[in-house]
Amino acid sequence: MNPDNSVLRALLNPRSLAVFGASGDPAKFGGRVMHFLLKHGYRGRIVPVHPSAKEVLGIPAVAQLSAAGEPVDVCLLALPAAHLAQALEDCGRSGARGAVVITADFAETGPEGAARQQVLVDIARRHGLRIIGPNCLGYINPHLNLALTSSVALATEPMPRGDIGLACQSGSLMASLISHAQDCGAGFSVAATVGNQADIGLCDLMEYFIEDAATRAICLYVEGLKDGARFLELARRARAAGKPVLAVKAGRSTAGERLTQSHTASLAGSYAVWAAACRDHAVILLDDPEALIYCADFLVRFGAPARSTVAVISPSGGTVAVTGDRVSTAGLVLAEPGAETRAALSAMLPPGRLINPLDVGGLPRSSGLDSALTAYELLAKDPAVGAILIAVATTPQLEDKVRQWGRAAIAGGKPTALLLTPGTLVDGARRALREIRCPYTNRLDDALRVLRAAVDYGAALRDPPPPAAPSPRAAGVCRMADGLPEGRLTEPETKALLREAGIRTTEDLLAPTPDAAVEQARRIGFPVVLKGVCRQLVHKSEAGAVRLGISDEAALREAWQQIVRGLEAHLPGATLEGCVVQPMLSDGIELIVGCRWDEQFGPVVVVGSGGVLVEILDDVQMAVAPVSVAHAGRLIAALRIAPVLAGARGRRPADIEALADAVARLSELAAALGPRLAELDINPLLVRESGHGVIALDGRATLTGKTL
Amino acid sequence: MNPDNSVLRALLNPRSLAVFGASGDPAKFGGRVMHFLLKHGYRGRIVPVHPSAKEVLGIPAVAQLSAAGEPVDVCLLALPAAHLAQALEDCGRSGARGAVVITADFAETGPEGAARQQVLVDIARRHGLRIIGPNCLGYINPHLNLALTSSVALATEPMPRGDIGLACQSGSLMASLISHAQDCGAGFSVAATVGNQADIGLCDLMEYFIEDAATRAICLYVEGLKDGARFLELARRARAAGKPVLAVKAGRSTAGERLTQSHTASLAGSYAVWAAACRDHAVILLDDPEALIYCADFLVRFGAPARSTVAVISPSGGTVAVTGDRVSTAGLVLAEPGAETRAALSAMLPPGRLINPLDVGGLPRSSGLDSALTAYELLAKDPAVGAILIAVATTPQLEDKVRQWGRAAIAGGKPTALLLTPGTLVDGARRALREIRCPYTNRLDDALRVLRAAVDYGAALRDPPPPAAPSPRAAGVCRMADGLPEGRLTEPETKALLREAGIRTTEDLLAPTPDAAVEQARRIGFPVVLKGVCRQLVHKSEAGAVRLGISDEAALREAWQQIVRGLEAHLPGATLEGCVVQPMLSDGIELIVGCRWDEQFGPVVVVGSGGVLVEILDDVQMAVAPVSVAHAGRLIAALRIAPVLAGARGRRPADIEALADAVARLSELAAALGPRLAELDINPLLVRESGHGVIALDGRATLTGKTL
Repeated sequence: MNPDNSVLRALLNPRSLAVFGASGDPAKFGGRVMHFLLKHGYRGRIVPVHPSAKEVLGIPAVAQLSAAGEPVDVCLLALPAAHLAQALEDCGRSGARGAVVITADFAETGPEGAARQQVLVDIARRHGLRIIGPNCLGYINPHLNLALTSSVALATEPMPRGDIGLACQSGSLMASLISHAQDCGAGFSVAATVGNQADIGLCDLMEYFIEDAATRAICLYVEGLKDGARFLELARRARAAGKPVLAVKAGRSTAGERLTQSHTASLAGSYAVWAAACRDHAVILLDDPEALIYCADFLVRFGAPARSTVAVISPSGGTVAVTGDRVSTAGLVLAEPGAETRAALSAMLPPGRLINPLDVGGLPRSSGLDSALTAYELLAKDPAVGAILIAVATTPQLEDKVRQWGRAAIAGGKPTALLLTPGTLVDGARRALREIRCPYTNRLDDALRVLRAAVDYGAALRDPPPPAAPSPRAAGVCRMADGLPEGRLTEPETKALLREAGIRTTEDLLAPTPDAAVEQARRIGFPVVLKGVCRQLVHKSEAGAVRLGISDEAALREAWQQIVRGLEAHLPGATLEGCVVQPMLSDGIELIVGCRWDEQFGPVVVVGSGGVLVEILDDVQMAVAPVSVAHAGRLIAALRIAPVLAGARGRRPADIEALADAVARLSELAAALGPRLAELDINPLLVRESGHGVIALDGRATLTGKTL
Repeated sequence: MNPDNSVLRALLNPRSLAVFGASGDPAKFGGRVMHFLLKHGYRGRIVPVHPSAKEVLGIPAVAQLSAAGEPVDVCLLALPAAHLAQALEDCGRSGARGAVVITADFAETGPEGAARQQVLVDIARRHGLRIIGPNCLGYINPHLNLALTSSVALATEPMPRGDIGLACQSGSLMASLISHAQDCGAGFSVAATVGNQADIGLCDLMEYFIEDAATRAICLYVEGLKDGARFLELARRARAAGKPVLAVKAGRSTAGERLTQSHTASLAGSYAVWAAACRDHAVILLDDPEALIYCADFLVRFGAPARSTVAVISPSGGTVAVTGDRVSTAGLVLAEPGAETRAALSAMLPPGRLINPLDVGGLPRSSGLDSALTAYELLAKDPAVGAILIAVATTPQLEDKVRQWGRAAIAGGKPTALLLTPGTLVDGARRALREIRCPYTNRLDDALRVLRAAVDYGAALRDPPPPAAPSPRAAGVCRMADGLPEGRLTEPETKALLREAGIRTTEDLLAPTPDAAVEQARRIGFPVVLKGVCRQLVHKSEAGAVRLGISDEAALREAWQQIVRGLEAHLPGATLEGCVVQPMLSDGIELIVGCRWDEQFGPVVVVGSGGVLVEILDDVQMAVAPVSVAHAGRLIAALRIAPVLAGARGRRPADIEALADAVARLSELAAALGPRLAELDINPLLVRESGHGVIALDGRATLTGKTL
C-alpha cells in the first residue's frame, strides 16, 4: 500500500471522529450530521465539539478537541468560514489525522477565496493534517454504518452498502447517486466528495479504491483533474487489479467548462484529450452520472463480455422491433447465433420469426418449461453472443418471469441487461430483481449505455495497454531544440525538427534573394511553390505568402514581389527572412498531423483529415503521446477518411504504414520535448500511395521556455 | 366530420357492447375483459356472449348475439381462431356496427394467415361491419371508464384519463404506455391498438383524433402505413387543428424492418423517407415509445416554444455543469437572456457565476423570497428564452421547492421541463407535480427529448407547410415519357427528360460511328469525354464505358475501341448504340440529385454530396416531391457540404440558387411522372460558382408501366 494512503484509509474508516459545529437541530448542517451518525448506527467514538453545550443528542461535548483526550481519526468541520482556521488549529493540536471541511466560499469564488483556502492548507501542513474539501459534502462508508455528511440523501435508510467506490466532485450529485443506488439495488464501499481538492484529490481516492478490498468498481465524477499523468498511471493499476474505472466529466461544452471553474475551482481541460486518454486506458467514459452506477453494478455482477455482440429478447413484438432498431443505431453489433442455437430456437418459434432480435411473445410452454426462459438460456450458452438485452413488457405473471430471467442470468454469468418499463405496474418485478441482486434499468437509454460500456470495456481489455514511458528514438530532437529560439519557429526550422525525428519533408532551403530562389527552382524543376519565411507571420496563406504553381523564372520573380507586398500590407514592419522554393506535389491525400502540450495530460498527438474536408468533417483522432505504430494505426483506422485511405472505389490504397510511422514518430518527438513544445502542426502531410511514403509539405511549431 | 368516422366514433364510444368469449375466469382473455369492464365502471349495456352460461359475473349472457334484441355498438372477439368466422357472422346478423378482434395468427404469420384474414374482412364487408384488428389488444376510453382490452396494464386503477389520443400497432406497447402515463400523471382520450389493420388503420384513428374534441395531441406507434399520402394529408389537417402529432416508427434498421413484417404484417418502408416526410409536416418523430407520452403531455400543457432557445437552471453545481454539456451536445441552443434579465440575475448571484446554464445553489433568500424561484421567473419572462430546463437536485425542502417551480411554470406558461432524479427520495416531489398536473421526467435523456421535440415542433410551425399538389411546370415531361420505352433509359434519353423539365445538361448527341464522334469532338473542342451508350448497361464506369480526358482524334478512336472491347467483356452480346461526346467539365462542386418512387409516400427527391465524399459522408437530404425552390434550399442548407457550397475559406460561393431550382424542377418531374418513373439519378450535377448555374454531366433513369 502507498504509505500516504494509510492516512486516507484512516480518514475514511475512522475508529473515532469529532464533529465541529455539532448540534441537535436537524435544520443545521452540524445537526443533520449528528442525526445521521446516530440514526445509521456508527459504532466508533463520536466527539461533538461545541463552544458551550455540555452534550449533543446525549453525547458528551467538548469546547476544545485538544482537551478531549485520545486523538480522533477524523474531524468534520461544518462551521462558518470565520471560525474555520481556529477549529483547524484545534484539530491539529489534538493530534487528529485529518479533517473533512464542508464549508464553502473558497477557491471556487475566485482569487480571494483561493487565498483563504491556502491559509487552511498551510495550517493543515503545519500539523501534518490531511484535508478533504473545502466546499465538499463529506462521505459515507456504509460498511461502518457511517454517514459523515449533511446530505439529505441520508434521510432514508438503509445506506446502500456494496462494492462501488465513488469519488465525486459535486456534493449534490453524490447525494443523488446515493438515492439512485438505493433505488436500483446497488451500493457503495465508500462514496466521497472532494470539493475543491485543496489537499486530497480524486486521484488519492482512486488509489484508495484500487487498494481497498471492499471496492470492485470505481466511479468518478470529474470537473477537473490535478494531475493527468497520475490519473493514467492509476488507470493502468486499476486495469491490472481488474477493477473497472467509470467516469463522467463535466466541462465538455464551453458553458460546462466555465461552470466547473465557479463550482469547484477546477480547470476542465480539453474534453477531447480526456476522452482519448480514457479510451486508451480502458476508462469507461459516460455522459450521465446515474449511468455510472448502472454500468458499474453491471460490470461487478457480470464482468466484461467476451465478445462485442448483443442478442435482444422481448415478449413484445413492438418492443423487440423498437429495441432492435435502437441497438443498431447505437452502433452495437447484433450477434449471429451459431447453427446449433438457431436450430434449437427455430424449432420453438412460429415460421418467419427472426432469431435476433428475438420476439418470444406468445410461445407455448414446451415440456412444461417457459419457452421465453428456454430461449434466453439457448442464447446465453452460445459463445457467439457477447451480451443479452432482455426488454421486459407488461404481460401476465410478469414478476415470476422476470425473477426467472434474473436468476438464470446471475447463475449463468452471461452479461445480461434486464430492461423494465417505468410504470408502477412493474414495481414487483423491480423488487424481485433487487432481492436477487440482479441489475436492471428502467429506460432503454440506460440499457444501451450499460451494454455499450460493457462491450467497450471488454474490447479495451483485449487491446494492450499503452506504453508508460517514451521511447528514446527522439532524443536527437532535444539537442536540436536547444539550438532553436523560443516562440514561433519558421517552416524550415520546423521541418528540420521533423527530419531529425525521422519524418520526411520537402527539402527546402532558404533562398535569401530572388536570384537564389530562381537557382533552386531550376534545380528542382518548374512548376514550383514559393513561400515567404517570416518568424512573426502565423498564417502564411492569409498574408499571401504562399504562391503555388509557379511555371517559370518570370513568374517566380513576380511571386517574390507579391510576397513582399503582401507581408508589408499584412504585417507592416515585419522582416522577410527570405523564401523557400518547393516542388509542386499533389500525388496523394492530404492529412493534418500535429501535437501539442496539454496542461492536464502532457504531450498529445493528433491526426485528421486535411484540405476541404476539415471544414465539413470533424475528423480528428488524438492520443496522449507517445503512441506505438500499432496504436497510431488504430487512430488512423478510426478516422472517417479511413475508407479513402484504404483505397475505396478501385483507387490504390494509400501508404497507411508510413502514415502510422510518422504519427508515432511525431508523438515521440512531442514526448521528448515535453512542455518546451507548445504545439507543432504538419499541414498538410501528403500521404502517397502504398509503398511511396508520406511527406510533410508545410509545418509550423511554437517552442516555450517551460520544462517539467 | 368524415362520415366514415361516425362509425369509428361509435366503436370507440359505445353505448352498448358485447363480449364474445366472456368468462368469469381472469386467467382467460375474455375473463380479464369482463373483470376490467366491471372494475373500471363502464356504464353502458354489456352483453356477454357464451354458448352455455346463463350469466357471467352476474350479467345475463346470450348464446347468440343476434338473439339479444337491440344491436350493440361494438363486439369484442377474444375467441380461438376456429370460432371467429361464425362469431363475426353473428355480430353482422345482430346489427352491431363493428368488432374488435383480439385473436392473432393471421396475416402476420404469412400468406396462409393473410387468406384467413381476408375471410374475416369479407364477412365484415358483407354485413357492413367495421373491424379493429385482428391481432390487436383492443382499446381504452377512460372518459367512459371503458377498458375494452385484456391487457394486464388495466389491473391498476384509475385508468389514466386525459387528452392524448394514442394509436398503437403493438398491444403490449399500448399496455406499457398506459402504465407509464399512470406513473407520470398523463392520460388518454382514447388509447387503441390496430393490430394487422385489416380494416381500420392508423390513419383512421388519426382522423378520429383530429376530429375528437377530447383529444389535444396525437401519438402513434407505427410499424407500417397503408397510405403515406393520406397520412401526410392528415398531418396537414392536424397541424391546422393545432394538434401536435408524435410518432415512433419501427423498422429503422434491417432487423427492425424484418420484425415489423412478422409482428403486424406491415411493410416498414424506407425510414429515411418517413423521417423526411415527418420533418416537413411538423410530425414529431421520436425514437422511444415512452417519450411519446412525455412529449405529448408537455406540448399539451405548454404549447410549442416561441423561440428555439433553452435556459438551464439547477440548484446543484455538478448537475448544472453536466446538464449544460448535454444540452449543448444534443444540439439545443442555450438562450442568451436579455440585458435586463442578466442585470437582475447578476445582482442575486455570487461573482463569476454564469447566467445560463445557471447554478442557483446556495443563494440566500432575497426579500423573503426563494432566490431559485425568483431566478426562474426572471428567465421565464424573458422573450429571448424559448424553454427552460430545471434540473432538480436532492436538497432540503425539495418537495416545496419543486411544487413552487411547477406552479410558476403552469401559471406563467413558459415551456418548462422539470427534471427529477430517479430515486425514491424524490417520490414526494413527483406526487406534488402530478397533483398540479405539471409534466416532469426522471432522466435527462427524456428531458432533452421533450425540449428537442418542443423546439423542433415550434420551428416546424414557423415554416410554411409543403404544397399539397404538384405544379404544372413539368407537364411536358409526361408527353415526352409517352414516347420512351419502359425499363432503363440511356443517358441521352435521361438528359432529354431533364432538359424538358428545365434542367441544364451537357448537349450530348449520339454518335453512331467513330467518325461522327470525331466530328463532334472537333466542334466541342478537345479534351473531351467519350461514353458508350447501351440500354442494358447499368454501371457504365464498371464496364469501362466512360473515357475521360481524351486529347486528340487518335486517342478518341482508341477510346471507342476500348469501349467496344470493355462492353463485350462486361456484357457479352449487348448492343452498343453508339457513343456520346461531351466536354471535360470540372469547374465546380459535384453533387448527386435524384428522385425515386416510394411505395408508401410516392415521389421522393434526393440531394447529396457526390464524388469521393459519398464514401465517407452520409450526406443526403430528401423530401416527398414536389418541393418548392425555398424547400429545396432548406434541404441543401442541411447538407454537411453546405459550408463548402457557401464558399468557405475564401472560395467563391457556388450557385446554390440554381441548385435549388434544379432540385425543385426534378421534384416536379418526379411528381408529374408518378409511379411511371421508378428512379432517376443525376450523378454528377456540377454546381458552378454563383451566377454560372448547374449542369447535369451524367444521368440514368428507369421507367415502369405503372400508373396510379
